[in-house]
Amino acid sequence: MNFEPSPRVQEYLERIHSFIDEHIEPNEHVYHEQLEQNRWTIPPIMDEWKAKAKEAGLWTLFLPPEYGEYSAGFSNLEYAYLAEAMGYRSLLAAEAFNCDAPDSGNMEVLAKYGTPEQKERWLKPLLDGEIRSAFAMTEPAVASSDATNIETSIVRDGDEYVINGRKHFTSGALSERCGIMILLGKTDPNAPKHAQQSQVLIPTNTPGITMHKNLKTFGYDAAPFGHPEVVFDNVRVPVENLILGEGRGFEIAQGRLGPGRVHHCMRLLGMAQRALEMMASRAEARSPFGKPLSKQQSVREDVALAACKIEQARLMTLKTAVKMDEGGAKHAADLIAMIKIIVPNMTCEVLDRAIQIHGGAGFSQEFMLARSYVFSRTVRVLDGPDEVHMMQLGRNLCKRYAEKLAG
Amino acid sequence: MNFEPSPRVQEYLERIHSFIDEHIEPNEHVYHEQLEQNRWTIPPIMDEWKAKAKEAGLWTLFLPPEYGEYSAGFSNLEYAYLAEAMGYRSLLAAEAFNCDAPDSGNMEVLAKYGTPEQKERWLKPLLDGEIRSAFAMTEPAVASSDATNIETSIVRDGDEYVINGRKHFTSGALSERCGIMILLGKTDPNAPKHAQQSQVLIPTNTPGITMHKNLKTFGYDAAPFGHPEVVFDNVRVPVENLILGEGRGFEIAQGRLGPGRVHHCMRLLGMAQRALEMMASRAEARSPFGKPLSKQQSVREDVALAACKIEQARLMTLKTAVKMDEGGAKHAADLIAMIKIIVPNMTCEVLDRAIQIHGGAGFSQEFMLARSYVFSRTVRVLDGPDEVHMMQLGRNLCKRYAEKLAG
Amino acid sequence: MNFEPSPRVQEYLERIHSFIDEHIEPNEHVYHEQLEQNRWTIPPIMDEWKAKAKEAGLWTLFLPPEYGEYSAGFSNLEYAYLAEAMGYRSLLAAEAFNCDAPDSGNMEVLAKYGTPEQKERWLKPLLDGEIRSAFAMTEPAVASSDATNIETSIVRDGDEYVINGRKHFTSGALSERCGIMILLGKTDPNAPKHAQQSQVLIPTNTPGITMHKNLKTFGYDAAPFGHPEVVFDNVRVPVENLILGEGRGFEIAQGRLGPGRVHHCMRLLGMAQRALEMMASRAEARSPFGKPLSKQQSVREDVALAACKIEQARLMTLKTAVKMDEGGAKHAADLIAMIKIIVPNMTCEVLDRAIQIHGGAGFSQEFMLARSYVFSRTVRVLDGPDEVHMMQLGRNLCKRYAEKLAG
Amino acid sequence: MNFEPSPRVQEYLERIHSFIDEHIEPNEHVYHEQLEQNRWTIPPIMDEWKAKAKEAGLWTLFLPPEYGEYSAGFSNLEYAYLAEAMGYRSLLAAEAFNCDAPDSGNMEVLAKYGTPEQKERWLKPLLDGEIRSAFAMTEPAVASSDATNIETSIVRDGDEYVINGRKHFTSGALSERCGIMILLGKTDPNAPKHAQQSQVLIPTNTPGITMHKNLKTFGYDAAPFGHPEVVFDNVRVPVENLILGEGRGFEIAQGRLGPGRVHHCMRLLGMAQRALEMMASRAEARSPFGKPLSKQQSVREDVALAACKIEQARLMTLKTAVKMDEGGAKHAADLIAMIKIIVPNMTCEVLDRAIQIHGGAGFSQEFMLARSYVFSRTVRVLDGPDEVHMMQLGRNLCKRYAEKLAG
Repeated sequence: MNFEPSPRVQEYLERIHSFIDEHIEPNEHVYHEQLEQNRWTIPPIMDEWKAKAKEAGLWTLFLPPEYGEYSAGFSNLEYAYLAEAMGYRSLLAAEAFNCDAPDSGNMEVLAKYGTPEQKERWLKPLLDGEIRSAFAMTEPAVASSDATNIETSIVRDGDEYVINGRKHFTSGALSERCGIMILLGKTDPNAPKHAQQSQVLIPTNTPGITMHKNLKTFGYDAAPFGHPEVVFDNVRVPVENLILGEGRGFEIAQGRLGPGRVHHCMRLLGMAQRALEMMASRAEARSPFGKPLSKQQSVREDVALAACKIEQARLMTLKTAVKMDEGGAKHAADLIAMIKIIVPNMTCEVLDRAIQIHGGAGFSQEFMLARSYVFSRTVRVLDGPDEVHMMQLGRNLCKRYAEKLAG
Repeated sequence: MNFEPSPRVQEYLERIHSFIDEHIEPNEHVYHEQLEQNRWTIPPIMDEWKAKAKEAGLWTLFLPPEYGEYSAGFSNLEYAYLAEAMGYRSLLAAEAFNCDAPDSGNMEVLAKYGTPEQKERWLKPLLDGEIRSAFAMTEPAVASSDATNIETSIVRDGDEYVINGRKHFTSGALSERCGIMILLGKTDPNAPKHAQQSQVLIPTNTPGITMHKNLKTFGYDAAPFGHPEVVFDNVRVPVENLILGEGRGFEIAQGRLGPGRVHHCMRLLGMAQRALEMMASRAEARSPFGKPLSKQQSVREDVALAACKIEQARLMTLKTAVKMDEGGAKHAADLIAMIKIIVPNMTCEVLDRAIQIHGGAGFSQEFMLARSYVFSRTVRVLDGPDEVHMMQLGRNLCKRYAEKLAG
Repeated sequence: MNFEPSPRVQEYLERIHSFIDEHIEPNEHVYHEQLEQNRWTIPPIMDEWKAKAKEAGLWTLFLPPEYGEYSAGFSNLEYAYLAEAMGYRSLLAAEAFNCDAPDSGNMEVLAKYGTPEQKERWLKPLLDGEIRSAFAMTEPAVASSDATNIETSIVRDGDEYVINGRKHFTSGALSERCGIMILLGKTDPNAPKHAQQSQVLIPTNTPGITMHKNLKTFGYDAAPFGHPEVVFDNVRVPVENLILGEGRGFEIAQGRLGPGRVHHCMRLLGMAQRALEMMASRAEARSPFGKPLSKQQSVREDVALAACKIEQARLMTLKTAVKMDEGGAKHAADLIAMIKIIVPNMTCEVLDRAIQIHGGAGFSQEFMLARSYVFSRTVRVLDGPDEVHMMQLGRNLCKRYAEKLAG
Repeated sequence: MNFEPSPRVQEYLERIHSFIDEHIEPNEHVYHEQLEQNRWTIPPIMDEWKAKAKEAGLWTLFLPPEYGEYSAGFSNLEYAYLAEAMGYRSLLAAEAFNCDAPDSGNMEVLAKYGTPEQKERWLKPLLDGEIRSAFAMTEPAVASSDATNIETSIVRDGDEYVINGRKHFTSGALSERCGIMILLGKTDPNAPKHAQQSQVLIPTNTPGITMHKNLKTFGYDAAPFGHPEVVFDNVRVPVENLILGEGRGFEIAQGRLGPGRVHHCMRLLGMAQRALEMMASRAEARSPFGKPLSKQQSVREDVALAACKIEQARLMTLKTAVKMDEGGAKHAADLIAMIKIIVPNMTCEVLDRAIQIHGGAGFSQEFMLARSYVFSRTVRVLDGPDEVHMMQLGRNLCKRYAEKLAG
């Protein structure tokens, strides 16, 4: 059992850290100034970073070797370390390396299930970072944590599908670059419960699509991407835009969400690690009541516990990646559920303590803490809220262990 | 022992609820639309609400009877119920009733320690809601949770004080209506530790004052009031602007912070109660997995525990108010520390669960939950972070009980 | 609103404290030595204490004024303070004052629902402290947290009832003084769900009763009372031993459990308060790493939080008592559920921290901490586990608030 | 990275499970009956188990390969799996396999630092399971979590050391088989702080040793081994009984406590895993309120979270063992502190939930839950309380990360 990354990964880690050090971190303020000028346009500096990242070979690293030509050749385990490094210093790094959600999930879906035409038309520009994408799943009117509740209809009419419905939290859809949406809807409300749904590709500029309210998260507007409500009113796409087949929407969602959850957890670990280091560092630097905070036992306990929780969660995430490498997301289903439960919660806890130690400034744009907190907090809901994962995992374990002890 | 509000308070509660029902709540969207137009101007509808509130006799209710002509005649206990009602439905109500921080604290300071001239010039327009105010205390460069660290200098020069320093989180100072700031600084760095500080009144338009970065809290910019960094560069005010006397800054802070903490807690209780009711209501309305969330035992436990925690914290707050009515803030010091520790934490917890039950929409502007969460979260730092209150309370209790058991 | 006990209660509090000071506490070691000699006999010193307590007028104080001649005249609110005092110093005090469970609940049932003959035969000697009693409810074979699961049968046969079944955790039944048991069983398995059960009085020496395994709680055997499994094999009692009427077992249970839960909570508050004071005192006395523990911020936080939690829970308990005084246990049902959820959990938490601060000795018989912890821990299950109270409270609140917000 | 045990370990795991299945578990009641007969004598069946375990090659498995002839050849990582298996089903298994504390630690000390004579005289019979041993460290009079506080004196007098002092929680010292004690005391109170202490070997039957009060843990008397207070009154041992050298007591303690903490954690993981399986199994079997507990969302969450916490803690423990295999206890110091903080806390939490789901029976001797809880709870204090580990870890991390971020 060897818990250290391989030399190749080690070398990439150094390159990622250097890249962020040199290009991204010292110029984050430029990004924000440009964004302030033009709130719904991707700041030009992001394109500069992307060009440099491509040149540096730090580009679209997340697809595992089974994706052949599309893959940078990293196993899930190897990518785990890289993703942590991307999350560690800057909330902008993953985008610069073309490893950001929801594009990463959409690329994986297209690479896995797409037809050659679909790949040519949408996967290629996504891989190249020319367009961005969105995933339209959650609906405001129903409890979408149970995806069988979803009501958007996809009705075949000749050579076209006609889509009607209302989605919200369609992250990324407000970007002018958003070229394509993948939508989950119902093709057959009378089929068995998990065969009613399908996924279709909908170009963002298709007539009938209107963007409504942008949902903020704790005050953040997620510009230049947004989380809008999107209304689909008799939106028509050719039948070729169907992915995989009618009734296979759940199967695709499964294939998508597994790796997506793992990538989120990996990046969150980076954020939590950063928060720990910032908290420790602040505790050495600040001295209310005559001595550094780092000499207060309560602060030492916070720091020690944060380190324990991060390391535990990291090991679970690495083990999950190993299992996925061995047998795919299904093989790792329990572990994926476990890290989806553990990691965002842990990250929220660690960030909350780090914020507290930074005092009022911790809430502000001075540090990446508040923004990271909000990101972690939302991950506790997206891709299935904590409770749904605990429900499924708990149910399975009760059954399994009751059988085991009964002999 | 009677836990119900008096008939007079009961009657005011109904009037407050009706006012919010009729005027504020259905027009909150107007407020936000006007604010969107003109981010740093108080939306005109707020002035309409204020005029109506004045007319309805729901105006500046927080000063207890000891303040004579300035008081609406409510004891701290009576005001506790009213403040909870103000916090219950809308984050804008307290301002409409002229009961909002930091004005409430500044009015109390002026009413308690102000000279007749200071009262005439600043207390009167504050009571009338004509101007607003700020309190400049925290500094970015030092651990301000220990106020003896504060470095801004107030140096006497003839008939004037000259102020130099940098404050941040100066809530309200960005408002065009902000007419006056109360500043805590050092007049004598060589005096005994708690006699070095003084408080002076500084009109916002005094030369030498510049507003720097507005600190956001999570993603909120607190418009139209802001939490700016304020730099004081050789700012001069006449010596008549000193409050109470040189070296008495701590004494004033004490007198100010006690009631201020209690008012915050009261309003937070309203928010928590609202969140509980929203959570319960959402749990009846949403049915993932074939039955309402309210039939899930985990949701029932969340709701039950939230109700328990709120009711406990409410009783503590009421007891604190009773003690303050009996003998002032000093007499109630332990209880004030206790509710400052308990209430914002409890409110954060309850809001966090309420958010989770609302799914993604819980993070957004659709509900008042995320904004209330952020407000509660910041109260865990402002007016002394949790840790400072626990430090003082814990120290006192160790001493007291060790003596008691030693007999 | 006045949170202080009345002068009469104040005077009784002093007498209770003095009594424990003078008689019980310095002689607890005698009790334990006598018990060691003869593990299943009530130590003679307990009878001495009881005689003195009777003489001192500190006897059977818990029945509220509505019980007329049986009552010491204290309202529930007044008794709340007294019960806390009884729990504060010694785990033996409540018995010495004849205020101990399960006798207190059994006395209340008899006083409330008993026939004159039942009162004469069993209530009188219980009030006099001549006999003790047990309550046979929980069954090992079924999930007894749902009392409708209970299977023990009570079948009428002429002028007698015939009882068959197996009960466990029948606290007190192993005492040689245990004269009477109240048993909950089913008289009509075909009646509506909550009308199947009845309660009967069964003298402990009735043929057919056998005592089986004494269930320990953690390592404690509860001598000289025990928590045995009791088997009822064709046990016959005259029909006059029925309480209130067939099918009214639930109604009686309700009437019994309300006050019983409140009394438990009151005493637990005393234990928690004591633990806090011991923790504070120990923290002043012990100095690992060169300074008293009371100077460690983490210890100050523990002490401060314990004080906050205790005071909150105390206020809830007092409010519950007030509600019971106003309108009985039914009127206070929500509050009773709330304190049953909050108080034992809080007490466990406080005791756990107090134990930790005492190091290894905290686990041992050197201090009352470990024993108090175990008592509090068991209260989280007895009289309905936490989860059942949260289920009912949560269900009610969801309904209530959903209706309220729907208007 | 491979998280599965090697084939050799896998094979031993099966043998350990079979052994417990066949010999120990079905005969635990015999052990307890024999113990009831003769509370301070090791029940004869234990010797039978030991004989069988020796014969089966499941004997003294914990010493890693560096101990040559004394080692069963398992690395720390390999032993981690075996220790978990020993803790999983029975609290008696570790003793039957001669892998129990405090003997394991004492054997390791002797194997590591003992002279050939010391090894011959004490290590050999310990390895053979002929005698047992104790470790006399903690003192009732001082805060022993800081070992520099320890006051027992070891004074050289000619060819002898004279020991005076009072130790408590000297686990194992009440056993009639206890042949040897290792004592930590001060040889030079004027030396530098960490060079004042030494460790000496004291045969239990040396004149001047008296056993005082046996300290119980939550009611358990730990028979037939006990946790007595031991008074050393001019106890004399030859200078040859010194271990390693004067002033090296801390160094030995360090060497001892590292592996000891790891072994405890490993066994606790087994207990926690068992509790999880029992909880899951009980949840399938019990149906209050009309459906199995395993269909209650709150129970599913308990089960899911318990599984997450156990798996996380297990991975940390395995990583710790790997680090120890790589470079010894010092190399793994941070990780050892981490698991000592995490594992016993986690085990307590899991056991507490498992107890709650078992209702009253969960507190009793019917299940191994209450006893396991108490064991885990005491581990939170022994070998250094949680707080000391967090203090050291937190201090180190603050320093390390402050330096890292400062660059």
